Amino acid sequence: MSTGELDVVGVGNAIVDVVARTGDEFLAHHGLIKGAMRLIDETEADALYKAMAPAQETSGGSAANTIAGVASLGGKPAYIGRVRRDQLGEIFCHDLRAIGVHLAVPAASSGPPTARCLILVTPDGERTLNTYLGACVDLSPEDIDEALIGRAKITYLEGYLWDRPRAKEAFLRAARVASAAGRQVALSLSDSFCVDRHRESFLELVSHHVDILFANETEIKSLYQTDSFETAAQCARSQTGLAVLTRGARGSVLISGSEQIEVAAEPLSRVVDTTGAGDLYAAGVLFGMTHGHSLGESGRRGAIAAAEVIGHYGARPETQLAELTRRTLRPPAP
Amino acid sequence: MSTGELDVVGVGNAIVDVVARTGDEFLAHHGLIKGAMRLIDETEADALYKAMAPAQETSGGSAANTIAGVASLGGKPAYIGRVRRDQLGEIFCHDLRAIGVHLAVPAASSGPPTARCLILVTPDGERTLNTYLGACVDLSPEDIDEALIGRAKITYLEGYLWDRPRAKEAFLRAARVASAAGRQVALSLSDSFCVDRHRESFLELVSHHVDILFANETEIKSLYQTDSFETAAQCARSQTGLAVLTRGARGSVLISGSEQIEVAAEPLSRVVDTTGAGDLYAAGVLFGMTHGHSLGESGRRGAIAAAEVIGHYGARPETQLAELTRRTLRPPAP
Repeated sequence: MSTGELDVVGVGNAIVDVVARTGDEFLAHHGLIKGAMRLIDETEADALYKAMAPAQETSGGSAANTIAGVASLGGKPAYIGRVRRDQLGEIFCHDLRAIGVHLAVPAASSGPPTARCLILVTPDGERTLNTYLGACVDLSPEDIDEALIGRAKITYLEGYLWDRPRAKEAFLRAARVASAAGRQVALSLSDSFCVDRHRESFLELVSHHVDILFANETEIKSLYQTDSFETAAQCARSQTGLAVLTRGARGSVLISGSEQIEVAAEPLSRVVDTTGAGDLYAAGVLFGMTHGHSLGESGRRGAIAAAEVIGHYGARPETQLAELTRRTLRPPAP
Repeated sequence: MSTGELDVVGVGNAIVDVVARTGDEFLAHHGLIKGAMRLIDETEADALYKAMAPAQETSGGSAANTIAGVASLGGKPAYIGRVRRDQLGEIFCHDLRAIGVHLAVPAASSGPPTARCLILVTPDGERTLNTYLGACVDLSPEDIDEALIGRAKITYLEGYLWDRPRAKEAFLRAARVASAAGRQVALSLSDSFCVDRHRESFLELVSHHVDILFANETEIKSLYQTDSFETAAQCARSQTGLAVLTRGARGSVLISGSEQIEVAAEPLSRVVDTTGAGDLYAAGVLFGMTHGHSLGESGRRGAIAAAEVIGHYGARPETQLAELTRRTLRPPAP
């Protein structure tokens, strides 16, 4: 790849999604909490997969979905994450390379298989995630390419990395390298249960290392242990340069110092599958911020990208987002 | 599995579909003929995959799609086909087992990887297929379980098997075993290029071994080398017990002796991806024929199943077809 400046480098768990439709009773029968992500081991993954309906396989992974969105919007992104050299790993790498994403870490020739996330989509479009981390557990500080991080305007980190000690070290190294290079560090809180597991260290991280914080309403309320979105938003304002808070159908709020911008959600003809909605919203904002757009314009791009991915199964855009955004933002003919 | 009677046993190439959207110019650039299936080797498969856009992986294979449709309609089907014990093979087997299909052949622990079909879907919903047969090439007469064939009312064979000598032997063995057991043999012609490659032996096969022939308009015209659908249909009438001929948006014709039934295509709100339309039409007819329905009622079930699969990406039903059919066929409230 060239050695020019990059917009965003994402660091995350490299995962193939295995998406199946299911009824609410399946979740109840297997003791699953709707809308949550839980980590499962290989044995559990095999048992749950066996019980699941026929599925579709698509590349996923929170930060990887965001990076795919940045590429689809016309940005220049790279990705740091670990797969095994197996068929799922090949699929994961292909789907990012095919849209021009530079992959920094080669596939491992030994160790656990490529990670998968068993995603159960209920009729309301909600998704319940069951992740077997596989090869992701071997992500380590040595995988953080300092030169690559230094070339990217923003280093984007997913909170899910915090679940594994070595990945957490890799995460911290990436954050430190980016800060030292005068670059921005962005964090997505990923999941309210992830926030619960790591609240203290996330709070420490946000106040010391994070320039841009992405969270949905549940996550930000969990981080600051409050029932009030407004209180949580004010805490985020005081602790980070830019807080980007999503509220589902109620749109999103971008808060930076004294500036506070509300962005409406895009109108949706139907909710098919919300998997990737937050990831793609982040893609729009990151693209906007690295291309000289205002907070409001960046948020609008996020809303457009999120709406696209909610309209179909799978967590990556099916439409070229650059073109979709142009069409959507074009002023109506007089 | 139980030892009771089965409705249909399918014999075919066990394939995972890799589906990507593309423009017409991609087909032109790679010299691909829109709508056709071509066989490619591993090197070509790797090169084409590398050039393709991000994709979705779903289980496919013509006869396997049909068998999945029969299961979704509430029938009792089994499947004979070969995969390797690898990640794609696991996906293929899971997706059939999850809907209650008995798989007769265990996954191979050595040999070529599980087959894949690189499917390019153009904006008109047409699909262009590029198949790397992989583990399918090892399907052999020893894979034909005589007891299983004897238990099924209909043995359904896909024409694609004719492309490999050992698979062809397996095909012929299945046909002979079914006939000897007083069961019916059904054949799908699969593809007009497949018919071109094997016209003489298909003609021989149809007149001697086939009770039910499935073909689309292009395929049946190619088989009898005529430009007239009516001429081709009359040839099919004289050579086989039941000819089931599909004509896309113009519906289908079922011809048996002096009986000739025309079935309209189901109304479609949009054509997303025609992959699997013929396979699912066959599923509806096979289900109907094995459940005491008339030719017309069976054809109607085929049309409903085909319409479902055309409305989304992927060649297998996303809706439970038994329920969809009940809803669609229910007389309107007075």
